[in-house]
Amino acid sequence: MRVSVLIWLALGCFSASLPAQQVQTNEPKYTNEGQLIKPDNYREWIYLSSGLGMTYGIVESAANTVFGDRFDNVFVNPQAYKSFLGTGAWPDKTIFAMEVRSSASKGSINKGGRYQEELVGLEIHLKDQTRFPNKWAFFAFSPADKTAKPLPANSSCQTCHSQNGAVDETFVQFYPTLIPIAKAKGTFKADK
Amino acid sequence: MRVSVLIWLALGCFSASLPAQQVQTNEPKYTNEGQLIKPDNYREWIYLSSGLGMTYGIVESAANTVFGDRFDNVFVNPQAYKSFLGTGAWPDKTIFAMEVRSSASKGSINKGGRYQEELVGLEIHLKDQTRFPNKWAFFAFSPADKTAKPLPANSSCQTCHSQNGAVDETFVQFYPTLIPIAKAKGTFKADK
Repeated sequence: MRVSVLIWLALGCFSASLPAQQVQTNEPKYTNEGQLIKPDNYREWIYLSSGLGMTYGIVESAANTVFGDRFDNVFVNPQAYKSFLGTGAWPDKTIFAMEVRSSASKGSINKGGRYQEELVGLEIHLKDQTRFPNKWAFFAFSPADKTAKPLPANSSCQTCHSQNGAVDETFVQFYPTLIPIAKAKGTFKADK
Repeated sequence: MRVSVLIWLALGCFSASLPAQQVQTNEPKYTNEGQLIKPDNYREWIYLSSGLGMTYGIVESAANTVFGDRFDNVFVNPQAYKSFLGTGAWPDKTIFAMEVRSSASKGSINKGGRYQEELVGLEIHLKDQTRFPNKWAFFAFSPADKTAKPLPANSSCQTCHSQNGAVDETFVQFYPTLIPIAKAKGTFKADK
């Protein structure tokens, strides 16, 4: 009897701890056709930073604005964040989620500046070293999309990030809480 | 022998599950003098939204700007967020953390718009119903502060939030992912 109680305790305890581990897995998932399945819980990942109307001068177009008057909010999956805190580097299966939101200036008690409104799009940037020749890949989702194909390996996103990322192919130079960690770990490219 | 292994398994399993629960407590902690101890992990809480230079017209001063060209980023403790998803209301021990960060426009590849830089301050807004007559209280931390006294019960923060909060005394009207939840649960004051 005592043994069976202990077996129950041991098994019950293991099974009780499984759901938490499963929830926190947060690894890339693909369809059989190789499309990325949109992670539905990225808003509960670790927030890195936001920008408003960020404009990359390297884009040689009539208007260099990437986001207009839109906000971008960047999140990363928790296990990659935890790894980064210890190493200053991004492990395999790192997933960045950058959502883009429209903004407004006047509403409720607000009379100036800008606050966030509707989701306009979601871009995923992930590291899956065995699946992608460049190790990293980008995926662009409209708000209605459930899956997305990887952008071409020579997309402007991929090219810009590989040339200008301060840590690996990521824009840590715009994530203020990560900059001192990367500098301390020697992974920060100061010329980016 | 088999029993001892099971005891080890059971005890080891329980002790392994304790730290995760402790980490996720995230309840207000005070000094003996009643000052709030700054939560040191709020950046790992649930992100709600950001604004840039938000300006509240009800502030009757020469310049109504609350934040200038600064960003605000708002986080809430995970257990309050989880409760809100189910009820549309904030439970006791809800903690909001609003950090204020300076911004820049030109740096790295960025040539326009604004991105975030240094921490300028941190404001905590929490619900602790037995401790505070208004149920809610505000605390303002400079980046160096480890503890802070509650702002007076008639502070401009407290007065504005109690008059203009769309849910309880909080500005859910500026948290786009929470608005539909509060509306569905009937807790959203549409005139705010």
